[in-house]
Amino acid sequence: MWGGGMMFNEIALQDDAVHIVKELGVSYRPKGDGYYTMDSVEATSTIISQCVKAGTAIFNLVRVTDVLFREEEGRPTISGLVINWSPVEKLGLHVDPLGMQARFVVDGTGHPAEICRIVTRKLDARLNTKTGDVVGEMPLWADKGEEFTVVNTGEVFPGLYVAGMAANNAFGGPRMGPIFGGMLLSGKKIAEMLSGKLGV
Amino acid sequence: MWGGGMMFNEIALQDDAVHIVKELGVSYRPKGDGYYTMDSVEATSTIISQCVKAGTAIFNLVRVTDVLFREEEGRPTISGLVINWSPVEKLGLHVDPLGMQARFVVDGTGHPAEICRIVTRKLDARLNTKTGDVVGEMPLWADKGEEFTVVNTGEVFPGLYVAGMAANNAFGGPRMGPIFGGMLLSGKKIAEMLSGKLGV
Amino acid sequence: MWGGGMMFNEIALQDDAVHIVKELGVSYRPKGDGYYTMDSVEATSTIISQCVKAGTAIFNLVRVTDVLFREEEGRPTISGLVINWSPVEKLGLHVDPLGMQARFVVDGTGHPAEICRIVTRKLDARLNTKTGDVVGEMPLWADKGEEFTVVNTGEVFPGLYVAGMAANNAFGGPRMGPIFGGMLLSGKKIAEMLSGKLGV
Amino acid sequence: MWGGGMMFNEIALQDDAVHIVKELGVSYRPKGDGYYTMDSVEATSTIISQCVKAGTAIFNLVRVTDVLFREEEGRPTISGLVINWSPVEKLGLHVDPLGMQARFVVDGTGHPAEICRIVTRKLDARLNTKTGDVVGEMPLWADKGEEFTVVNTGEVFPGLYVAGMAANNAFGGPRMGPIFGGMLLSGKKIAEMLSGKLGV
Amino acid sequence: MWGGGMMFNEIALQDDAVHIVKELGVSYRPKGDGYYTMDSVEATSTIISQCVKAGTAIFNLVRVTDVLFREEEGRPTISGLVINWSPVEKLGLHVDPLGMQARFVVDGTGHPAEICRIVTRKLDARLNTKTGDVVGEMPLWADKGEEFTVVNTGEVFPGLYVAGMAANNAFGGPRMGPIFGGMLLSGKKIAEMLSGKLGV
Amino acid sequence: MWGGGMMFNEIALQDDAVHIVKELGVSYRPKGDGYYTMDSVEATSTIISQCVKAGTAIFNLVRVTDVLFREEEGRPTISGLVINWSPVEKLGLHVDPLGMQARFVVDGTGHPAEICRIVTRKLDARLNTKTGDVVGEMPLWADKGEEFTVVNTGEVFPGLYVAGMAANNAFGGPRMGPIFGGMLLSGKKIAEMLSGKLGV
Amino acid sequence: MWGGGMMFNEIALQDDAVHIVKELGVSYRPKGDGYYTMDSVEATSTIISQCVKAGTAIFNLVRVTDVLFREEEGRPTISGLVINWSPVEKLGLHVDPLGMQARFVVDGTGHPAEICRIVTRKLDARLNTKTGDVVGEMPLWADKGEEFTVVNTGEVFPGLYVAGMAANNAFGGPRMGPIFGGMLLSGKKIAEMLSGKLGV
Amino acid sequence: MWGGGMMFNEIALQDDAVHIVKELGVSYRPKGDGYYTMDSVEATSTIISQCVKAGTAIFNLVRVTDVLFREEEGRPTISGLVINWSPVEKLGLHVDPLGMQARFVVDGTGHPAEICRIVTRKLDARLNTKTGDVVGEMPLWADKGEEFTVVNTGEVFPGLYVAGMAANNAFGGPRMGPIFGGMLLSGKKIAEMLSGKLGV
Repeated sequence: MWGGGMMFNEIALQDDAVHIVKELGVSYRPKGDGYYTMDSVEATSTIISQCVKAGTAIFNLVRVTDVLFREEEGRPTISGLVINWSPVEKLGLHVDPLGMQARFVVDGTGHPAEICRIVTRKLDARLNTKTGDVVGEMPLWADKGEEFTVVNTGEVFPGLYVAGMAANNAFGGPRMGPIFGGMLLSGKKIAEMLSGKLGV
Repeated sequence: MWGGGMMFNEIALQDDAVHIVKELGVSYRPKGDGYYTMDSVEATSTIISQCVKAGTAIFNLVRVTDVLFREEEGRPTISGLVINWSPVEKLGLHVDPLGMQARFVVDGTGHPAEICRIVTRKLDARLNTKTGDVVGEMPLWADKGEEFTVVNTGEVFPGLYVAGMAANNAFGGPRMGPIFGGMLLSGKKIAEMLSGKLGV
Repeated sequence: MWGGGMMFNEIALQDDAVHIVKELGVSYRPKGDGYYTMDSVEATSTIISQCVKAGTAIFNLVRVTDVLFREEEGRPTISGLVINWSPVEKLGLHVDPLGMQARFVVDGTGHPAEICRIVTRKLDARLNTKTGDVVGEMPLWADKGEEFTVVNTGEVFPGLYVAGMAANNAFGGPRMGPIFGGMLLSGKKIAEMLSGKLGV
Repeated sequence: MWGGGMMFNEIALQDDAVHIVKELGVSYRPKGDGYYTMDSVEATSTIISQCVKAGTAIFNLVRVTDVLFREEEGRPTISGLVINWSPVEKLGLHVDPLGMQARFVVDGTGHPAEICRIVTRKLDARLNTKTGDVVGEMPLWADKGEEFTVVNTGEVFPGLYVAGMAANNAFGGPRMGPIFGGMLLSGKKIAEMLSGKLGV
Repeated sequence: MWGGGMMFNEIALQDDAVHIVKELGVSYRPKGDGYYTMDSVEATSTIISQCVKAGTAIFNLVRVTDVLFREEEGRPTISGLVINWSPVEKLGLHVDPLGMQARFVVDGTGHPAEICRIVTRKLDARLNTKTGDVVGEMPLWADKGEEFTVVNTGEVFPGLYVAGMAANNAFGGPRMGPIFGGMLLSGKKIAEMLSGKLGV
Repeated sequence: MWGGGMMFNEIALQDDAVHIVKELGVSYRPKGDGYYTMDSVEATSTIISQCVKAGTAIFNLVRVTDVLFREEEGRPTISGLVINWSPVEKLGLHVDPLGMQARFVVDGTGHPAEICRIVTRKLDARLNTKTGDVVGEMPLWADKGEEFTVVNTGEVFPGLYVAGMAANNAFGGPRMGPIFGGMLLSGKKIAEMLSGKLGV
Repeated sequence: MWGGGMMFNEIALQDDAVHIVKELGVSYRPKGDGYYTMDSVEATSTIISQCVKAGTAIFNLVRVTDVLFREEEGRPTISGLVINWSPVEKLGLHVDPLGMQARFVVDGTGHPAEICRIVTRKLDARLNTKTGDVVGEMPLWADKGEEFTVVNTGEVFPGLYVAGMAANNAFGGPRMGPIFGGMLLSGKKIAEMLSGKLGV
Repeated sequence: MWGGGMMFNEIALQDDAVHIVKELGVSYRPKGDGYYTMDSVEATSTIISQCVKAGTAIFNLVRVTDVLFREEEGRPTISGLVINWSPVEKLGLHVDPLGMQARFVVDGTGHPAEICRIVTRKLDARLNTKTGDVVGEMPLWADKGEEFTVVNTGEVFPGLYVAGMAANNAFGGPRMGPIFGGMLLSGKKIAEMLSGKLGV
C-alpha cells in the first residue's frame, strides 16, 4: 500500500469502507461517485500503528517458508507456521527455520496466495475451492473483485483462512486496482470471525 | 527495429509495402528482386514521429501487466489494460498498477504475444485460433511468414486484436527475418479495421 | 528504525527523550538505569503516521540526486532539491530528474550525510565544520554520540541543515547504537529552529 | 530526452529556442512566462528523424571507448574515435575495438563528458578550461545553466569540441533541469561552427 | 547445521540420540521433556572432525552432477558418482566432470534429495517408493518426521540409499525443525547397514 | 575440451581413435589398457587450426537462435539457421537475427541438443527417435556411451543431423566422461556422410 | 583453511608448529625437509572443535562492522566491537548493528586487516607501525612471511592486537602460501599474551 | 585475438611480421599498402597449437594473483608467480593460492599490465620507467604504437619483463588497433632474449 497506484502516493476507497478508516483515524477526501482518496503513506503507517497498539505482533524481516500440520480426525489440519529470517531466505543460505504453533493461520500474502500453494503442493490435499486447488486470480474487474474478496474471506482448508487478494486467487475471482475498501472489509471480517472462535 | 539485422543498421522491405514508407517519408534504396533497404534509425524514428504527430499517445517507460475485462452477453470481453512503470516491474517492487479502459486492445508485443498469453492464462477462455490457445510461432520461412502476418491480423478474442509477429505467434505461422513489409501492411490493416469500427 | 537492533524488533530510548514518544503515543517499557525499550514497528509506524497527520509530505519512492543553489550576497546558498524516482536511479536509467524549491534543506540521510557530500563535491565550497568538509563519523561511543547529535544539529552551509546521524558525520562525532533518544531530540530541535524561521 | 522529466513524458523549452523545434516540425504548447512544453516522444523521434534525413550517420549499438590522436606542430591533436559494439563493452568481452578517423570530435556525452575525461586521463595534457582538467558540473541552477551551455560550446582541446551538458561539465557550470532550449541552441552553434570549418 | 535454528547458534536433540553425541564428545545441556541443546558450531565441527579421523574422505568444494550406472541382471544399478568442482558448476563453465566408482551411493543431500531426482529424471526407472518417483516431503510435523527419517533410511534403488531428510523427501514424510536426533540415528543406521555389506 | 577433466588439462582417448589425432598432428601418451592422454590445450587448438585450414568457416561470437525450414514433398525440412551475435542474445537485446541457408544442418551442441529441441518445440513434428522427441541422455556409462555416439550419428529429421553428445541426447544413450574417442569418430562419420552427399 | 591450496584439500606445516597440531589431535604426515601435510578438512574442523570445547564463543553468521572506543588518559582506546548479522550486511539492509564490550580486540581478519583499517579510517589516529597506518602486505616470500607473522603478533593500537596474516598486513611483511605453522604459532602467542593480561 | 576487430573475425598484419605467421603456418591475404589480413580463429588457434607443440605449458583456467619475490644484492627480485583457479577468484572464495618459482616472469597481460601493477602496489619499489610507476597507455596511434611495443619489450624490474601491450602500458606508449604485427615481433624478441639468458 505504501507506493499508492503507480508510485503516485494516493490510494482510493469506497463509501462502504469509510467507517473503518474513520475509526483508525486516517484522513480521506471525497472524489465523488462514492469514492474517496487517502495519502498512501498516512494510511499505511496509521493502520500498522493501530494494529500494533491493538495487540498485533508483527515479525519484521521474517518470512513464512512452510506450515506445521497435525492429523485431526484423520484429516490434516494446519497448526502453525515455519519461519525464517527473510535475508537468510533471500540469500539461499542453508540455515534451519523454526516452527511456531498457531490456532489459526490466515493467508494474507495477496496475489500469490503463497501459503495456500504450500498446502496444495506439499500435502496432497484439496482446498475448499471449486477445483480443490488454488484456482488463480482473473484479470482486473474492479467492482466484481471488490465484492468477491469480502464474500470469499474465510476458511479454505482446516486451520487455514484466506483474506484480501489471497481470497480472490484461491477461489478464482478478478483482481482490483489500487482501491482498498474490499481489503479493509475483508480484514475486518476475518478478524471478527477468528476472535469469535478464540472467544475474545 | 532500431538495431537492424544483427546490429547492422539496415532493414529490408518488399515491393508491396514501399507505398507506406514513401507516405511516411522514409528513404529507401532498391536492392533488386523487389527488395529495398532502409536505414534502421531513420525508419524507426520517422515512423514514431509520424505516429505521434498523427495523434498516437505513446506511454514511454510503461509496461502492460494485465488486462481489464467485463462480461458482455455472458462472454468475457477485454475492455482495457493494467499498466505500471516498467522500472517498478523490472525491480519487482510491490507497487500497485493502474487500469485504463479501451474500446479495443491490440497485441503488438511481437514474438511473445504477451497479452494473448495473459488472456489464456488468467481467463480460462479460448482464443479464435485452431487450438484455442496461443499456437506458437514456427521457425523462420520468410515468404510464408510475411503473408501469414497480414492474413492473420484481426480479432483473436472479444475486444482483443493481434498485429505483426504477435499474429504469427497467436495463430501459429512462421517467423520472418529483418524484413518489415509484412509488419507495415499488418499495422495498416489493423489501423483501418479499428478506425472503421470507431467511426473515425 | 523498522529492523530494531540486529533484526530483534526492539529499540532503546533514554530518560530525556521519553516525553517525545509519550506525546506521539508510542508505548515504552522501563529497563532500568534510565533506559526504556519500544517495539520498533510500533515506534516507526506511529512516528510516520503522526508526522503525516501534522502536515509533513513524505515523497515515497523518490530519491534526492542533487541540490538547487543560488548566489546570495556573493555566496552560494542551497535553495532546493533535485529529485527522481528511486527505481529510475537504481536501474541507472537516463531519465531527467526534476527540481523543487525549498526555503531550507535538512540533511537527515544518516550515516552517509549524502546531501552534505553533494555540496562539497559539486560546489567547491566549505561547510561550517572544522575541516570545511564532511569530517566523517567516528566509531561507536554511545553516550558521547547521543550528546553530539543534539549539540551539532543546525546549519552546516547557507540553506543546508543537518540533524540526526548526519550531524555526527558532518561534524565528526561518534556513532551510537540502536538508541534513539538523541535522534528524537535532534529532530525536535531542528523542527523548532526552522518553524521559528518560517514564522509558523 | 525520451523519458521527459521523472518519466512524465513532457519536456520544457524557452522562447529563444522555439524557432529550432518549429523548423524541425515538433509541436509545442505555450505554458506562460516564455516557456513551452513538448511531448518527449515526439520531440526526440522527430529530431533523430530530421538529423538522419539531413545526412547524420548514427551508429546505433556502438560505444566510444577511446580516441585517436596525432602530434601536429608538437601538440597532440584528437583525430578520431575508437569504437566497439556496446554489448561487447557491457559484457566486458576481450574483443578489439576499431578506430575511425574524424576531422573533428564533439563530446556530446552529457553529464559525464566521457571523451574529455579520456583525453585528460590518457594524454597527460591540459584542456582549455580554468583548471586544465574537466572542472565538473555544479548543482542545478536552471537559468545560469542554460546560458552557460551555449557560451561554452566550442573547442576544449585541439580537435575536440564540447556541446550540451558536456560543456557545463568540462568548463564547470551549473546543470539544468529537463529544459532543452540550451541544448538545442548549443547543438545549432556547434553545427554551424564545424560546417564552417569543413566549408560545407 | 552450522547456523542452528534461524541463526541462533543452538540446535536441539532428543533423549534417544544422546548416546551418539556423547560418543563423539559433543557437549549437551538438558532442557527438560527429554530434549537437549548443543552449540551448533561445536556439534558440527566435532562431527566432521571425528568422521575424518574415523576414515571418511570429504571432498570439499566438489559437487555431484550425475551418477554412474551399469546394467546388472537386466536392471540399471547405480555404480558411482559424476563430480565436478563446485565453483565450475556455479559459474556454468563448460568443463567436463569426472566419474568415480562406488560400491554404494548414499543420497544425504537433505531436502532436495538431488541424487534420487537425477536417477528418476535420467534413467526412466522406478524408485522403491509408493509412487516410484521422489514422493516429496510434507510440511513440518516434528515428532512424525523424526521417526519417519529413521524408518525410511535404506535402499531406494539398486545401489542407491537415502539417509536423513533425503529419506523423508524420497518416501514422502514430514520435515522436522532444527532437531537433529533423527538425523544422527539415520546416519548411524545407514553406516551400520553398509559397513555390514562391505564386511568391515 | 579446453578445460580437460575437472580443470586438470588432460583428456583421454581410446585405441580406435588414435589414427585421427595422429593425422591432425596432436601428441598423445599411452596410459595402458588401450587408453591415451592428450594435453587438452594442444588437442583443442590443433583441431580448430586444422579444421579452419581444411576450409571450415567458424563464426566466432555467433549463436544459433532458430532454424530455417521449407516444405518439401509435404514435409517440413530444415534448410538453414537463424543466427545472432551471442553478446546480443546474452543481454536479451531486441535486435533481429539473420537467416543463413544450408544444405544440411548438424546439431553438435552436445548435452543440450539445442537445435533438435528447437525443431520439436517449434515445428510440432517428430524426430527419427523412439519417442519422436529428444529422448534425453542417460547417466554416465563410459563404454556404452562411446559406442552409442558413433552408431547414432546421422539424420534425425529431414535436413538435420546429430553428432557427438547431441546424438546421445537425441536418441537417449548414456553420457561419457572426458574421453574423446567417440566424439572424434562421430565427427569423422558425419563429415564423410555429408561430403558424400555434397559430392565433394 | 577448509579449501587447502587451490582446492587440493591438503595444507602444509613446518617442524616448529607440529607440537600444536599434536596437542589438538590433528593427524599429519612428514613430507621431508621439516615439512608436514595435514588434511585441510580434518585440521580445520578439529581446531574449531577444540577451540569451542576450550571455551571460545564463535558467533556464526555475524560480521564486525565497526569498533567501540573510549578515551583513556586522553587517548582513544578500542573497547569492543560493533556487530551485525552477515546476511543483513551482505544485502545492504538498513538494520542497526549492536555493540559488545571487550577487554581486548584481536584483528585476525587475515589479508585485509579489516579492523585495523576501521581504526585508521574512522579515528584519525596512528597505529604502532612504521607509517602509523596499515602498511600493507608484500608479495609472497614464504620463509620471511612465516617469521614475520610471529614476531609482529601483538598490540597495534591501545586495546587492539593483530595476529596471523593481519599482522603482516598491518606491519608490512610478506604473505605466505598455504603453510600454516606461522598462523598457529601466532595464535598461540596472542592467546598466551592476553590470558596473562586477563590473569587466567 | 579470437574476436578479431569488433567481432568481424579478421585481424590485420604488416609486412615486417609476415615471416612469423608464415613460419607458424597461418594463411594471410594481401590487402595492399603492406597490410595483410588473417582469419582470427585460424591465427589464434594455430599460434596456440604451435606454442604448445614447441614446449609451452599453458595453464588453462588459472589466474595470477600475486608474485613471489626474494632479496638479491639488497634489491627485491621477482622470482615466481602466485596462482589460483580462475573460477575460485571470480567467485571471491577464500581458498589459498599456490606459489610457483620462475627464473623470469613476463607480463603479457596486455592493456592492464596487471603484474607490473602488483609489483608497484605491493613492493613499494620503482620500475625501470620514466615515472618509476606504470606510466599508463596513451590513446590510439597505430603506427607509433606498433613501434613502441617492440622497442619497449624487455626488463621492467629485476626478474620481470614486459611484452606486447603491457610494454606500452608500463612505459607509456600509444595503443594500437587490431593490427598484430607489433605483438608478434614483441613476442619473438622477448622469447629470444630469455632463451639466450636460459642458455637454450
